[in-house]
Amino acid sequence: MTSRDRPASKMANGEAHIIHDFLAPLAAGHVGALGLMDDAAFITPPAGHEIVATMDAVAAGVHFFPDDAPADIGWKALAVNVSDLIAKGATPHAYLMSLAFPEPPADAWLAGFARGLMECQQAYVITLAGGDTDRRPGPLSVTITALGLVPTGQMVRRATAHPGDHIFVTGTLGDAALGLRLRAGDGEAAGIALGASDRAALVGRYLRPVPPLAAVSVLRQHASAAMDVSDGLVKDLGRMVQASGCGAGVDLAALPLSTAARAALIAAPSWQDIPATGGDDYQVLACVAPSAVADFRASAAAAGVVVTEIGRATDGAGVVVLDRDGRPVTFATPGYDHF
Amino acid sequence: MTSRDRPASKMANGEAHIIHDFLAPLAAGHVGALGLMDDAAFITPPAGHEIVATMDAVAAGVHFFPDDAPADIGWKALAVNVSDLIAKGATPHAYLMSLAFPEPPADAWLAGFARGLMECQQAYVITLAGGDTDRRPGPLSVTITALGLVPTGQMVRRATAHPGDHIFVTGTLGDAALGLRLRAGDGEAAGIALGASDRAALVGRYLRPVPPLAAVSVLRQHASAAMDVSDGLVKDLGRMVQASGCGAGVDLAALPLSTAARAALIAAPSWQDIPATGGDDYQVLACVAPSAVADFRASAAAAGVVVTEIGRATDGAGVVVLDRDGRPVTFATPGYDHF
Repeated sequence: MTSRDRPASKMANGEAHIIHDFLAPLAAGHVGALGLMDDAAFITPPAGHEIVATMDAVAAGVHFFPDDAPADIGWKALAVNVSDLIAKGATPHAYLMSLAFPEPPADAWLAGFARGLMECQQAYVITLAGGDTDRRPGPLSVTITALGLVPTGQMVRRATAHPGDHIFVTGTLGDAALGLRLRAGDGEAAGIALGASDRAALVGRYLRPVPPLAAVSVLRQHASAAMDVSDGLVKDLGRMVQASGCGAGVDLAALPLSTAARAALIAAPSWQDIPATGGDDYQVLACVAPSAVADFRASAAAAGVVVTEIGRATDGAGVVVLDRDGRPVTFATPGYDHF
Repeated sequence: MTSRDRPASKMANGEAHIIHDFLAPLAAGHVGALGLMDDAAFITPPAGHEIVATMDAVAAGVHFFPDDAPADIGWKALAVNVSDLIAKGATPHAYLMSLAFPEPPADAWLAGFARGLMECQQAYVITLAGGDTDRRPGPLSVTITALGLVPTGQMVRRATAHPGDHIFVTGTLGDAALGLRLRAGDGEAAGIALGASDRAALVGRYLRPVPPLAAVSVLRQHASAAMDVSDGLVKDLGRMVQASGCGAGVDLAALPLSTAARAALIAAPSWQDIPATGGDDYQVLACVAPSAVADFRASAAAAGVVVTEIGRATDGAGVVVLDRDGRPVTFATPGYDHF
């Protein structure tokens, strides 16, 4: 028995309403989207450019809370995809989105969701180009394929780190994972002594990741390898060095922390591993050859991207994290696994 | 509470196993897929070409039966996307796939699923380039973004039909929707007198749609407008003429039926509306200007694509279906709605 058997409604149906009233305005900026009134979009890379494509889904109860503000859900669904484009040195261009609703969404929810998408579109200069809207059981889920542009051959890879490369990270680490625990509000989170503004800052980073758009050209010009940090620094760096056939040494004390994160770690010392292992950072991890480090730093500074050196790629294998005294640190939970 | 909180397993985890052992072989043919070991893929359109992008999801219990053979599920998930590319005159090129599993899938299931995808890849000359694998509650779902190539500016649109155009459809209609009812096996389907080979042919068309790859160049050269038929002829033609600002007259007796469908409609006369209104055909609906009809027919014949003229675009609005005696037919259920 499939729901294909159920009677269909009239032509002016729920799907058409969602597309016309809430999604089509998000596609107004893309000529190839054809107002979402065709079965596909066309995308024309400028001469000398190629497409970078990435796809990530977010689902209620897994990547966001079902009662998160719909605008935050829209922002996050797009931002986590834009994050991959940025880490690859690609300029965001267009996206396709597949929505799965367990029941017909309320207009107010759709309006908020579309507003969050639009805010993210404007922040990252990307437009909706197409997609699919469907109803099925299970959690609300938003699956996005984001398409970016790079000069041909210039996508920044994950597997091209070299021993001796300096390892940098953009922004700060751990905020979103701390924010998740605060947002959940359960267990220890309910009792920790943390000011309202620090709490709001961390929860805000969980709800609305802000990958660093200005890093695109910095990475393309100066990074030997890069990827975004989404499943935790140790885990993602492990993936990068494994793909590159090298290892990494990381200085735990060097990890960049926001003032809010510092306050949270003082208030809840048991969370101390989170900056190294928590997920949802959506910052960029970049390897830079020694000869390029000065230019990388200068370029990042000129672009307004905060970068912090956290370690070096090594001849070894795996990621070794050293504490202030040079002793290796082990983590109970090295990062997020999807299974 | 989100499942991000649950402890992660070791590095050689379920996700890596699925990607490495079952999905990476599907990406071996695409240089830009980077073995699925990067965070994004790069796709380089040949000079003078642009990308056509489309996205469709299939979910257990909605678009396929949970106990369908995994190879059939893999085939269908990709074929329904390829169908949109073909109808747009685009040559299939690469796809990204997001998998959502309610529980870790068995290796045997994954092997079958990957085999079905590979069979579809080979039939349509398309390769996996990237994606996302996640675990979440709800039905197993497979969301695909398919990317095709067209010479710049030559994507065949939906909204460019003109009054007077001849309306054609490829292949035969209704087989898959009849096959769905037979596959479901409930109600009348259980009792109808239909030979095993006819039954198998119809169920097979439901399980494995076969959009007509050879139609790509025929459509690009000679069609004024086209789209695939996935939610039922009357409904999809209604969308096409609405987008084009015209109407359509369809001759019910002209709808092309397979011998198996004819047998099924004799055995179950209450299903007579299905060829006009049933979904899942994944054939192409094309409008052709009167001056291009002869060339369209000749080109289709040369390419081995069966095309049947079923009506004309008109100055009116909406779709009028006429029976053998020229009387308008009304349908209880004009087509599939996703809400």
